[in-house]
Amino acid sequence: MKLVSSLASPFARKIRIAAIELGLFDRIDFVSPVKTIPTTENEDYARNINPLRKIPALILDDGTVIIDSYVIAEYLDELAGGKLIPASGLTKWRARTDHSILQGMLDALLLCRYEKLLRPGQFFWAEWADDQFKRAWDGLARYEAHPDVLTRPLDLVQISLVCVLGYLEFRFPDCGWRKTFPKLDAFHERMMQRDSVRTTLPPPA
Amino acid sequence: MKLVSSLASPFARKIRIAAIELGLFDRIDFVSPVKTIPTTENEDYARNINPLRKIPALILDDGTVIIDSYVIAEYLDELAGGKLIPASGLTKWRARTDHSILQGMLDALLLCRYEKLLRPGQFFWAEWADDQFKRAWDGLARYEAHPDVLTRPLDLVQISLVCVLGYLEFRFPDCGWRKTFPKLDAFHERMMQRDSVRTTLPPPA
Repeated sequence: MKLVSSLASPFARKIRIAAIELGLFDRIDFVSPVKTIPTTENEDYARNINPLRKIPALILDDGTVIIDSYVIAEYLDELAGGKLIPASGLTKWRARTDHSILQGMLDALLLCRYEKLLRPGQFFWAEWADDQFKRAWDGLARYEAHPDVLTRPLDLVQISLVCVLGYLEFRFPDCGWRKTFPKLDAFHERMMQRDSVRTTLPPPA
Repeated sequence: MKLVSSLASPFARKIRIAAIELGLFDRIDFVSPVKTIPTTENEDYARNINPLRKIPALILDDGTVIIDSYVIAEYLDELAGGKLIPASGLTKWRARTDHSILQGMLDALLLCRYEKLLRPGQFFWAEWADDQFKRAWDGLARYEAHPDVLTRPLDLVQISLVCVLGYLEFRFPDCGWRKTFPKLDAFHERMMQRDSVRTTLPPPA
């Protein structure tokens, strides 16, 4: 199978970490990134892979395309026997809720970044950028207040969270999350001891 | 259980249609909408329900919160015995991929609408609005080209698709989707024969 991805995408990083932890990394071809920047056309990708023009996309050997990173992670986890996601009961729905929230936090950070860097300066709306950033920040507060998520055995929620924190380090290095959220800082340090987390850090900005 | 929602939200409409079709509608209290407009604060909702400040959110009787509409729909479907989502195999992953794409199409339409109506006019960036709208439009082309999705027995993908089309009718009434996508038009007409689809139409704009 092939994963269309890029080294800078936090959504793709989540899949790469999960693939390593699940022992599936060698079964995936990581194919060169495509342009997925908003306002940049990519007709071929939109028509054949994903009309949303987002990455990652997983392409199975029979040509089936799996989208988005949430679904891809669950697909890989099932393929590996279900190691990273609870299979049933309330824990399953809580984990999927957390996964959705963390996905939304990354979406909000991306919208904040697009507002600041992609959009022409004369069209910048500070309230919008601040509002999107605050969604991610309020999400961090949620996990700082629920340290049980941070200390249990490795799961997809933790992998998603470390990708949010890594993206903050990468794109918002001065936001001060480590000081405001010391439990998340300690969690990040622990997670960085894993090869899967360390080797998938985004390239220097 | 309670669903925090609003009558105008296409994401909440998906849950209401699914709940009716699954025979679960009477087990859900639909609670008054909260303000979830970007740049509008809602500290209480952000802290206690969803840091992303989005709806819908499902609150179970024990207080567990389930987010987002994707996950809520899967929760209700499991509760009802799995009528709307394939349980296994490639059809499961294709259905979840379609669900993600349709969710992303709604996200893009909302971003387009926020750009045009929420953002102060002097900060309007036409290329952004057009780009977001095109994602949804390219998504419609995908389903027009795969009419098998439109004619199979009722499932969550069709419910999601009818919510996208209903949202276009509601918020982008002059976009011309019916002419460009005649198979989707016929699909929408067929779906409108269902009580669940007809009775959940958004209120007049």
